Amino acid sequence: MRPVFVAGIGSSAFGRHPETSIEALAIRAADAAIREAGLDRSDIGALYLGNFVAGPLLGQEVLAGLVADGLGLPQIPCTKVEGACASGGIAFRHAYLAVATGMCDMALAVGAEKMTHADTAAVTSALNCAMDFRSDGVSGLTFPGLFGLAWRLYEQRYGATRDDISAVVRKNKGNGLKNPLAQMGADLSTQEIGNARLICDPLRLYDCCPASDGAAAVLLVSGERLRDVIPQPVQVLASAQARGSARIAGHPDLCTFEATVAAAKGAYAQAGITADEVSCVELHDCFSIAEIIDAEDLGLMPRGAGAGYAAEGRTAVDGDRPINASGGLLAKGHPVGATGLGQIYESVLQLRGMHTNQVKGAKVALTHNLGGTGVACTVNILRATDA
Amino acid sequence: MRPVFVAGIGSSAFGRHPETSIEALAIRAADAAIREAGLDRSDIGALYLGNFVAGPLLGQEVLAGLVADGLGLPQIPCTKVEGACASGGIAFRHAYLAVATGMCDMALAVGAEKMTHADTAAVTSALNCAMDFRSDGVSGLTFPGLFGLAWRLYEQRYGATRDDISAVVRKNKGNGLKNPLAQMGADLSTQEIGNARLICDPLRLYDCCPASDGAAAVLLVSGERLRDVIPQPVQVLASAQARGSARIAGHPDLCTFEATVAAAKGAYAQAGITADEVSCVELHDCFSIAEIIDAEDLGLMPRGAGAGYAAEGRTAVDGDRPINASGGLLAKGHPVGATGLGQIYESVLQLRGMHTNQVKGAKVALTHNLGGTGVACTVNILRATDA
Repeated sequence: MRPVFVAGIGSSAFGRHPETSIEALAIRAADAAIREAGLDRSDIGALYLGNFVAGPLLGQEVLAGLVADGLGLPQIPCTKVEGACASGGIAFRHAYLAVATGMCDMALAVGAEKMTHADTAAVTSALNCAMDFRSDGVSGLTFPGLFGLAWRLYEQRYGATRDDISAVVRKNKGNGLKNPLAQMGADLSTQEIGNARLICDPLRLYDCCPASDGAAAVLLVSGERLRDVIPQPVQVLASAQARGSARIAGHPDLCTFEATVAAAKGAYAQAGITADEVSCVELHDCFSIAEIIDAEDLGLMPRGAGAGYAAEGRTAVDGDRPINASGGLLAKGHPVGATGLGQIYESVLQLRGMHTNQVKGAKVALTHNLGGTGVACTVNILRATDA
Repeated sequence: MRPVFVAGIGSSAFGRHPETSIEALAIRAADAAIREAGLDRSDIGALYLGNFVAGPLLGQEVLAGLVADGLGLPQIPCTKVEGACASGGIAFRHAYLAVATGMCDMALAVGAEKMTHADTAAVTSALNCAMDFRSDGVSGLTFPGLFGLAWRLYEQRYGATRDDISAVVRKNKGNGLKNPLAQMGADLSTQEIGNARLICDPLRLYDCCPASDGAAAVLLVSGERLRDVIPQPVQVLASAQARGSARIAGHPDLCTFEATVAAAKGAYAQAGITADEVSCVELHDCFSIAEIIDAEDLGLMPRGAGAGYAAEGRTAVDGDRPINASGGLLAKGHPVGATGLGQIYESVLQLRGMHTNQVKGAKVALTHNLGGTGVACTVNILRATDA
């Protein structure tokens, strides 16, 4: 495996894009990544596109080929990959592998989703394609339901309070306010969060990420291709993907996702670092409780300490364990197939020292993208090379 | 790239499986492939699953993880790949790459689709996700419409007759009769084919492949893993994937698919062989006219000669250019995501000398899987190593 670097990044704002097609969102983000790199697009050797529900919600598949067509790329392999909400991370990993294994010198990863045109029932139904329909689906459980169950178990086991968990929301919504790409930043009090409309007990409105439209893209290159071209190269130290149980009842413990634990273990080993060496983290906070569980699964703090870390401000931008400086899924938004690539986009800005919520001295960034009921997970580790 | 071999194959019959879920179809086919290989499933390092329309037609995504769960595989990367009707071929290529690049010693490719439970309108609508919705889709064109246009241009340019093209149907339906996995084999006269119910002028009933349920799987291994285990190893000489225009109006010529031409060129170069060295071919005859265009694109005969080759019996099992000895999509059926892997299954049987429509002395087999309006294509070349 040879070294792989980020040559360019691009992203739409996450939010509502009623007038823009999913292809146009993806093409613009990818075009921005290619232009930023200043490299010749005819040298791109592979395209991977992460998307989850364009089939059911838009009647549009073959997005990888459509986007390549719009970008004017050569007759290269173009592949849509799907692993529910981890689709974007999976696209990134496959573009990374294409370059790392020497299959090509330059590969493009794109993620895109369009959801806000559909009504809540249609979106819920589409998202439930991420469950095992024949077990969890027919039981009537939804994703808020799953994470509501996890919350109840977590608070019972570790004694976390509603206010502890609200601290995650307060932080991420606040971070989102300063991120120009964020859909729903807000300055919320603990009371406003705890008294908001009930969605699925104990989850309230601000505990849940919104449905979003958006696209993000990353152009990856080998070291040879990179020389003298990119001013602030970011290296991909690791990209790991793992699976967990596809059924909720298959999880031995709802306070952990085995796919996250396995992917994190693989990524740390590949990068040759420990969790303590990570400067900043973008993780999959589809719900407030998810940020706490994910952070513990990633080894960022001891089991049961995640809620306390949030309440004590240790996961804030200026804390010792900065998490979701972007605002995360809760505030930046969650255009499903784009989310994993949006995390890379935010992390590259951090490692370039150019984020609007800059983590001081950020050298190593980790991203975590989780799909379905924990059925798929990717963990990536990036490093600033000019440090 | 190190040598990659087929260690095991499995397949359902293609046809109607109303009582069997898509996961169960896929799990059974994959389990058969693993058991045939006699290797330890805990050593499998990656799973790729080809599927196209389980989202819209079944409300079920994350199939890669679901199938791995059912098979009892380890916490390996499990990825669904999509490129419309080429999804199965893309899954095969990615499993091949995982082993060829040394990422793992053993990888599983699975393809699955379930379509016969849905009504014709729902199936047509789902299949149209393979078109660019905003150009071709809104024009009202369907896939029979596209291939009807190609037929008209082909007959005008090359003087092929209805009876010439019917010869493809007659051959494939006849081959299907002898294939125990085929959905719709039949002994049809040229008159029955030419007088069948009109579907989309000039395409008649038997010119069109059926909607199908089915699954197929292939277990791929490195040479080291293979030693002393597999009695009749088949080597993967090449696996190529290319893209073409995503829009019908983007094709300069409807009598050729640029993605096929590019993928074939790549595959022949990788394998170091010419079309003349291919013993038998399984290609993407979604419609009768498609077999002729595909065969010419693959360089199996001169441009404009494809219809004549069929009429003269040269593409029959005992001809000098055997094509679709399995019955092809027209007779074996077309469970979309499974088709590309079904072609590998049939080709491995040929190279083992164990096909019910055995091509005598088959040493090298080629498979061709085409997606959408030619937006994605895979071409694979396999060789018998005990020859």
